[in-house]
Amino acid sequence: MASSRQRLIEAAFALFDERGFEETTVEDVAERAGVGRTTFFRVFKSKEDVIFPDHAVLLAAVRDRLATATDATASVAVTEAARLVLKHHLAEGDRARIRYRLTRSVPTLRAREIASQQQYQRTFREFVHDWLGSAPHTALRAELLANAVITAHNHVLRRWLRDQIDAQAANAEFDVAMAHVVSLHGTRPDAPGEREATLVVLRTTRPLAQMLPALREIAGHPLQD
Amino acid sequence: MASSRQRLIEAAFALFDERGFEETTVEDVAERAGVGRTTFFRVFKSKEDVIFPDHAVLLAAVRDRLATATDATASVAVTEAARLVLKHHLAEGDRARIRYRLTRSVPTLRAREIASQQQYQRTFREFVHDWLGSAPHTALRAELLANAVITAHNHVLRRWLRDQIDAQAANAEFDVAMAHVVSLHGTRPDAPGEREATLVVLRTTRPLAQMLPALREIAGHPLQD
Repeated sequence: MASSRQRLIEAAFALFDERGFEETTVEDVAERAGVGRTTFFRVFKSKEDVIFPDHAVLLAAVRDRLATATDATASVAVTEAARLVLKHHLAEGDRARIRYRLTRSVPTLRAREIASQQQYQRTFREFVHDWLGSAPHTALRAELLANAVITAHNHVLRRWLRDQIDAQAANAEFDVAMAHVVSLHGTRPDAPGEREATLVVLRTTRPLAQMLPALREIAGHPLQD
Repeated sequence: MASSRQRLIEAAFALFDERGFEETTVEDVAERAGVGRTTFFRVFKSKEDVIFPDHAVLLAAVRDRLATATDATASVAVTEAARLVLKHHLAEGDRARIRYRLTRSVPTLRAREIASQQQYQRTFREFVHDWLGSAPHTALRAELLANAVITAHNHVLRRWLRDQIDAQAANAEFDVAMAHVVSLHGTRPDAPGEREATLVVLRTTRPLAQMLPALREIAGHPLQD
């Protein structure tokens, strides 16, 4: 048998969807769930809280996933932590779609959603900031990467929420989107103690063959004539 | 002599700063500005509107700046359009700092600020989307670049608002931040009708010399033995 918490969540989403968020009272939700008002407030602080019932658990899961990363696996950890959030919403199904409609139409819920996103943003930003260590412009780069992760996640999730793609395509698009984000941001050009070649992004109309001798020279690998 | 509009803006910011936003009425603002309540509502729709008095003008300036761009100057246009917004806030001085305090403490003003930012975000995104044309993942890439521009702008502005840097340093940091954003995002790898070589970002411990033959092969410039 479902817990009171599960019954309250199901009742709330059903009522919010049928009648609207403002038009539904806590009493309505408790009644539909077959529990008392006191039980509702033992489980949730407010009516708004029911809309993001798993936020704290999910945020903790993201933190835990990031915490397992080493320097070498940091960009994988960022991708996999963001994937936890996507997978959670895909698994929610209609509940995620009802939430999407509500957050777009009810200002207090939109504000809640923004506050939740800021917590994810901060979690990723702090992780990336630690990871980048003493690299230059660390604060800016951490903020850019954290925002790019959230932008890419939301971009794919939104396409699924709008029925533009199914869950399988969402997973595939997420892989592509995160690979793009990681390829843009996921290098640490001046990590100490590593021997590595970093090829920067260039754009030119000059033939590659013409540039190669100079590129080899710059990288310390001149042609041995 | 200052216009009624200028006097209303000055009176409003002074009162909001002294008493708080919620504690100040439209009547208080009109009285301090030496005009009637009717004049206030001829100039502004609401008390919230006074907080962002130049939003529409500034957004139009950003659109105009972007509209002058060609494909070749698009990344410069993005930088210069964002610079208009930064310069405007730096020129506001204390008014920008009062607004910063208010938007962080008054939820309705925070919501206004987010709505304003979304308009900038949309303007940049639509511009970049047009610019990228038929490139793959255009919608995602446009969203990532637009968000990166706004993140970089806000990052530098916030440092100035918090008195961590002066206006001159803010301009210099903005140049660095936008150069970073443009270097990450500002290429259009598969623009049709252009002959170009794009070197993607790689990270490897393998010596460059060892990779060169394969790289030349991939780029269609094999060694002529």
